[in-house]
Amino acid sequence: MILLTRRAEFSASHFYWIDALPEAENQRLFGKCANRNGHGHNYTLEVTVEGEIDAVSGFVVDLKQLKELMAREVVDIYDHRHLNLEIPDFKQTVPTTENIAIAIWNRLEAGVRSLGARLHRVRVYEMADLFADYYGER
Amino acid sequence: MILLTRRAEFSASHFYWIDALPEAENQRLFGKCANRNGHGHNYTLEVTVEGEIDAVSGFVVDLKQLKELMAREVVDIYDHRHLNLEIPDFKQTVPTTENIAIAIWNRLEAGVRSLGARLHRVRVYEMADLFADYYGER
Amino acid sequence: MILLTRRAEFSASHFYWIDALPEAENQRLFGKCANRNGHGHNYTLEVTVEGEIDAVSGFVVDLKQLKELMAREVVDIYDHRHLNLEIPDFKQTVPTTENIAIAIWNRLEAGVRSLGARLHRVRVYEMADLFADYYGER
Amino acid sequence: MILLTRRAEFSASHFYWIDALPEAENQRLFGKCANRNGHGHNYTLEVTVEGEIDAVSGFVVDLKQLKELMAREVVDIYDHRHLNLEIPDFKQTVPTTENIAIAIWNRLEAGVRSLGARLHRVRVYEMADLFADYYGER
Amino acid sequence: MILLTRRAEFSASHFYWIDALPEAENQRLFGKCANRNGHGHNYTLEVTVEGEIDAVSGFVVDLKQLKELMAREVVDIYDHRHLNLEIPDFKQTVPTTENIAIAIWNRLEAGVRSLGARLHRVRVYEMADLFADYYGER
Amino acid sequence: MILLTRRAEFSASHFYWIDALPEAENQRLFGKCANRNGHGHNYTLEVTVEGEIDAVSGFVVDLKQLKELMAREVVDIYDHRHLNLEIPDFKQTVPTTENIAIAIWNRLEAGVRSLGARLHRVRVYEMADLFADYYGER
Repeated sequence: MILLTRRAEFSASHFYWIDALPEAENQRLFGKCANRNGHGHNYTLEVTVEGEIDAVSGFVVDLKQLKELMAREVVDIYDHRHLNLEIPDFKQTVPTTENIAIAIWNRLEAGVRSLGARLHRVRVYEMADLFADYYGER
Repeated sequence: MILLTRRAEFSASHFYWIDALPEAENQRLFGKCANRNGHGHNYTLEVTVEGEIDAVSGFVVDLKQLKELMAREVVDIYDHRHLNLEIPDFKQTVPTTENIAIAIWNRLEAGVRSLGARLHRVRVYEMADLFADYYGER
Repeated sequence: MILLTRRAEFSASHFYWIDALPEAENQRLFGKCANRNGHGHNYTLEVTVEGEIDAVSGFVVDLKQLKELMAREVVDIYDHRHLNLEIPDFKQTVPTTENIAIAIWNRLEAGVRSLGARLHRVRVYEMADLFADYYGER
Repeated sequence: MILLTRRAEFSASHFYWIDALPEAENQRLFGKCANRNGHGHNYTLEVTVEGEIDAVSGFVVDLKQLKELMAREVVDIYDHRHLNLEIPDFKQTVPTTENIAIAIWNRLEAGVRSLGARLHRVRVYEMADLFADYYGER
Repeated sequence: MILLTRRAEFSASHFYWIDALPEAENQRLFGKCANRNGHGHNYTLEVTVEGEIDAVSGFVVDLKQLKELMAREVVDIYDHRHLNLEIPDFKQTVPTTENIAIAIWNRLEAGVRSLGARLHRVRVYEMADLFADYYGER
Repeated sequence: MILLTRRAEFSASHFYWIDALPEAENQRLFGKCANRNGHGHNYTLEVTVEGEIDAVSGFVVDLKQLKELMAREVVDIYDHRHLNLEIPDFKQTVPTTENIAIAIWNRLEAGVRSLGARLHRVRVYEMADLFADYYGER
């Protein structure tokens, strides 16, 4: 078994806010992230797949196809978007780094399987000093 | 003469849009940056000051005071904000990387002089692969 | 289950020396690290916590509280200090990267639990090309 | 148990090509990597070893010996070489990132054991946005 | 006046060799770089342009056009190629970092002018610890 | 004219203290840097030389000789040392980033000239977010 990881980036806006809670409680929970005009980040995404190495090609997964999958399912959809206002994944959930990692897992899992590998981990960096890792439900 | 550079970061939203132009022209000029919901970046700011080294302290400028100046005049104001909607610097100008560098220069120049040095350069990274440098009017 | 990682930095001095061994043996074991005037590093600390995502906030752990914990228990204590001479954690043990990772684990484990999560990993970089990972006793 | 990781770099050429396949199939599989003049990368290698901390030295493994092992078995052999044309490891296998990680594992495993530790992981970055991890056969 | 810099990457092979010199002299001059099988690097290119900010768009230069120029004139031509064997720029000159920077300057200067700006600097990183800067003939 | 830059690293301890001043004044000037047990950094040094490209070799300067000069005059002397206690350069001057840059300039200038080039700039990073540039006396 071997793991292969590809990195990609997207730039997006978000804010942290729960409609069911009063403003003061949102402020207490989320501090400056509760600013509803939004703020943004250069997110870095690392997608790790696991599988067996193809004896002929030497690949766990076709790199070009993996890149296209990540572009089609994640980067083209999230990049230069406001996550709260434009992405259905965050209609019901706050776009924290944790929830973004889970949403990306759900977007990629079937596609990675169709490439003949298994999704192992999704890592999302909000900044260099903060990132979340999701390994799926186990 | 010696130069000293400090780096800081802020996360903000912005979009590119000119009210006086029709939507199609905004789209043509700015592409996906014209999305008025905004998108965002982790901006990196590098402030370079020049001066003589103080013979006693060995400093061109007091580092703590420079850091406080950058926080008070830029980071505390821009961080976790929507540049178009909340920052007066961009009421009349599009918050391109170039214009952000000039706005930060204007925010810092007098303060650096009051610390006994001269502002030499403001560099703003929108992402690792795109940055603007401003040296003031010469 | 999801993992969240925060990074922090501290700058400190250390040296490698065992009082019970003769100088020649210290030199053989530790080479230039045995210089008792000390040398130093910009250490990078990565603290990874695991837990369930709070259904309301979308957080595994309150980020601000985690940052404060790391500052209070590690960064404020180690930063700008001489690890051998000033930090009790290294009175009996050599401040190798491995031992620093274990000491930080011991400083953080209870605090992370009090935030409602579990400490998963402590990673300490001495330099970009050398780091230690500790996962606790298993 | 604790893990220690050292990083090293080497610059090498390679191409992707399978003699048993016709040119068109090589082009389809490998795209621009099939250029038989070769292209190259600055590879980054991360070697992670696991073991018990020596109660006296505070080391999992002697750092100097680990560095020498990595230099002798990998860096001195791969650096400034053409992997396909000059390295026996890739006479029968395509030098994909995955296969390079496995080849390096095989080069290091016995040596790490002779240093009193166990090889835990070999990570190879072909570029910042692409890397493979190998943990041995389990 | 303001400067704008875009970064791009390409992976290529090269070697250092002068046909007019005997092998021993090539070895003395170039050491392991004289291996005629070639070795390679992930080159990072930074292109800096200078100009006036357009009062309407806020741009020194259209970013999309600059990116396309760099792709068309440099990255698409150099990437995944052997610089000595396939790129005419290095038929007569050794592809040192210095000469690559000059060759890229010559490829870009007219194109940048046609975008309404001036080429200010070409920086080429062969590795993180080695780079050349060219400012044109002055 | 072309510029070539090489990077190197050294790890060292230092503190900021002026014997002629009372303790309270040292504390006021230097804050936590005044801790006389010392603290340390991974310093990054960038040495930029300028010159003409040799028409035969394609080099501004022999890279191996430049690396050896930097090792012999700076890295071998500063690395794993306490700058205040062990390096004569800082017997009379506080080892601020600015003063370290000047000291390194003085150590390298003649040597670079003997290699047939001119020293253009010495840059010293104390951390990623703080660096000094020295261009010599002009």
